[in-house]
Amino acid sequence: MDYSKFIGRNSELFKASEIRELLKVVEARKVISFAGGYPDPQTLPRESLARIAYEVILNQGDKALQYAPTKGVTVFRETLLKFLRNVGVKVAEEDDVIVTTGSQQGLDLISRTIIDPGDYIITENPTYLAALSAFRTARPNIVGIPVDEYGMKTEVLEDRLRELRSQGRRVKFVYTIPVAHNPTGITMSLERKKHLVELASQFDFLIFEDDPYSFFVFDEADVTKLKTLDSEGRVVYLGTLSKILSPGLRIGWVLGHKQIIDVFERAKQSMDLQTSTLSQYIAKEAIERGVVAETIEGAKRTYRVKRDAMVESLSENMVENSWWVKPVGGLFIMVWLPEQIDTKEMLTEAANEGVVYVPGASFFVDGSGKNTMRLNFSYPKIEEIRTGVEIIGRVVKRRIKGG
Amino acid sequence: MDYSKFIGRNSELFKASEIRELLKVVEARKVISFAGGYPDPQTLPRESLARIAYEVILNQGDKALQYAPTKGVTVFRETLLKFLRNVGVKVAEEDDVIVTTGSQQGLDLISRTIIDPGDYIITENPTYLAALSAFRTARPNIVGIPVDEYGMKTEVLEDRLRELRSQGRRVKFVYTIPVAHNPTGITMSLERKKHLVELASQFDFLIFEDDPYSFFVFDEADVTKLKTLDSEGRVVYLGTLSKILSPGLRIGWVLGHKQIIDVFERAKQSMDLQTSTLSQYIAKEAIERGVVAETIEGAKRTYRVKRDAMVESLSENMVENSWWVKPVGGLFIMVWLPEQIDTKEMLTEAANEGVVYVPGASFFVDGSGKNTMRLNFSYPKIEEIRTGVEIIGRVVKRRIKGG
Repeated sequence: MDYSKFIGRNSELFKASEIRELLKVVEARKVISFAGGYPDPQTLPRESLARIAYEVILNQGDKALQYAPTKGVTVFRETLLKFLRNVGVKVAEEDDVIVTTGSQQGLDLISRTIIDPGDYIITENPTYLAALSAFRTARPNIVGIPVDEYGMKTEVLEDRLRELRSQGRRVKFVYTIPVAHNPTGITMSLERKKHLVELASQFDFLIFEDDPYSFFVFDEADVTKLKTLDSEGRVVYLGTLSKILSPGLRIGWVLGHKQIIDVFERAKQSMDLQTSTLSQYIAKEAIERGVVAETIEGAKRTYRVKRDAMVESLSENMVENSWWVKPVGGLFIMVWLPEQIDTKEMLTEAANEGVVYVPGASFFVDGSGKNTMRLNFSYPKIEEIRTGVEIIGRVVKRRIKGG
Repeated sequence: MDYSKFIGRNSELFKASEIRELLKVVEARKVISFAGGYPDPQTLPRESLARIAYEVILNQGDKALQYAPTKGVTVFRETLLKFLRNVGVKVAEEDDVIVTTGSQQGLDLISRTIIDPGDYIITENPTYLAALSAFRTARPNIVGIPVDEYGMKTEVLEDRLRELRSQGRRVKFVYTIPVAHNPTGITMSLERKKHLVELASQFDFLIFEDDPYSFFVFDEADVTKLKTLDSEGRVVYLGTLSKILSPGLRIGWVLGHKQIIDVFERAKQSMDLQTSTLSQYIAKEAIERGVVAETIEGAKRTYRVKRDAMVESLSENMVENSWWVKPVGGLFIMVWLPEQIDTKEMLTEAANEGVVYVPGASFFVDGSGKNTMRLNFSYPKIEEIRTGVEIIGRVVKRRIKGG
């Protein structure tokens, strides 16, 4: 039977990732993978969470196993707000928080309830691939702003905003990952952050601040939240426990003005009714008993060493005219290779030699970035990091000579 | 600040439920509630799940706490398929299964990837409110087919199909809850099921079979799945562990032809990436260790007694010209009261006397059903069931005399 006649036209907005398909093929072989975004399994607090899960189900099972409100378990939302305040996130009087099924659902909520087809929205260029995918299902015009080692170039942003205004176009929001940005690993300077928040006020747009990584920066770095700099209720803050407790719990959240959270709540009710009650009760206890704090300390230790290994190996093995920023946190480094290298073309060769990565072009709004690749350092072992980067270095050199 | 300019037009498709708001107000008082759809907390297998969660996290934590594939944890999907085959669900060679965040996400997937605006789709009238809400976000034309004690009147369906065909209109799918239907509690006869499957072939449409309740029918009843009667790959089967293990885990699934499941997988990736890995590992063990089977037996015992209490109380307390069907399973009974009664109008009075229910009109596709109400018997205690139904009977009688 031909099912295509039963499939809606909108389904085409959900693209199968070409990269994902490619990686499926090459990862089937035994290779070192810099492609994923998994936390190091060593950082997952198994014993503490096992005990918490046991106690929570046994003692509070009639709540923890039952339905819960769409906005989230009330006692968990209270704990979460306390936790966020403690790490310097400003929670305004008019704010509210909704628990989401991973922060991916936060991105989907933006897509479904904020973006109208044709809207102008702005992201870093490159930016998080899954955010692009989610936003694109609502058919906006996405404008990418280049980055340097201080993050999004807000002076370029200002120019683009003026230009768009002069064309009679209004920008609805800027989406940004200010700290340890995915895919580049770059952190925005405080000055740029302030500039961005000023521009939001001046040009009347919202900011969606996606912040999975600021909780475990390894080096000294400014992690002031845009949310905290904002005094007009323009910043909506997305977070997740995926990297500081466990991705398998699927706990994310959106914190922002209650008018927006109310809209998200209404949509979420139709989308999945609520996020796992059990996960929320476990997360509550994990925060209150200090398990999240311990996990953060462990993650910092583990990832600093791995980051150092990768940065060192890159310095030793990459050809001239390569560029990357040493990240202060997060899970990723993006490498810009010389212009003649096409990392997508190079992937099969690298896989044959024993290593895979994510070709960077998919993270770019405008189809540029063919000479970039995203490398994950959180999951592979130290030896794998060294060997993998060596291999990439070798393959790149060969291609430069060959071409 | 006025946030309305930042909110997308599509957000209006997600309606705030008027009933939900009303219930928030009236449920704040201490009243007997027939309004929810919660399982009896006694049926939740706390001790077994506490032990399972502990062991799963401790022994398989590097998988159970980690990211998992969008389609679901592979070993859980295998267990699930075995479980479904055991309860008589036909799994065809070309079928695949995707794990969803509750079966609500299955409904949302239908809405986002199957329905085009203006499509004709068909449901029972009345039908599950949250299915209507989810479908309506895709702006279809929904045609409701009346029910009697044998379920959807398929002869009426056939007439409507002919009529629509003669108008050049194609029906994309029929959505049905054949067993212990929500809100009516009615179960479709085998004859009607066969007729429905024949019509799907004859008029070339899909069937979405939503089946949360057939696992725990209390009386002798035919629970043959439409999925099993189908030999053409037209039936897509939605299920959930919410009523036979725990709603708090948020585990649902969709089983159907892989061409459809592939589309769902692509969309889900953008929606929430994946359903809780931990919930899936717990669910796998709960099925394999017989905890689901035990929970089902417990639910049958508990709900049969409560159903009996409610049906008996209804017989004693409802006025003439009231109608309901004694359900063989599920959580709900719908009562049709005499035409002059408006159950929404009556709700405040009932709440003042100490009982709330869901006015039935919201479940109807066409705004009819003003004289109906949905009563939940799974959550309230036996004494509450008796007292609550007595109160409703008294209020109805008063209104009939008064009017």
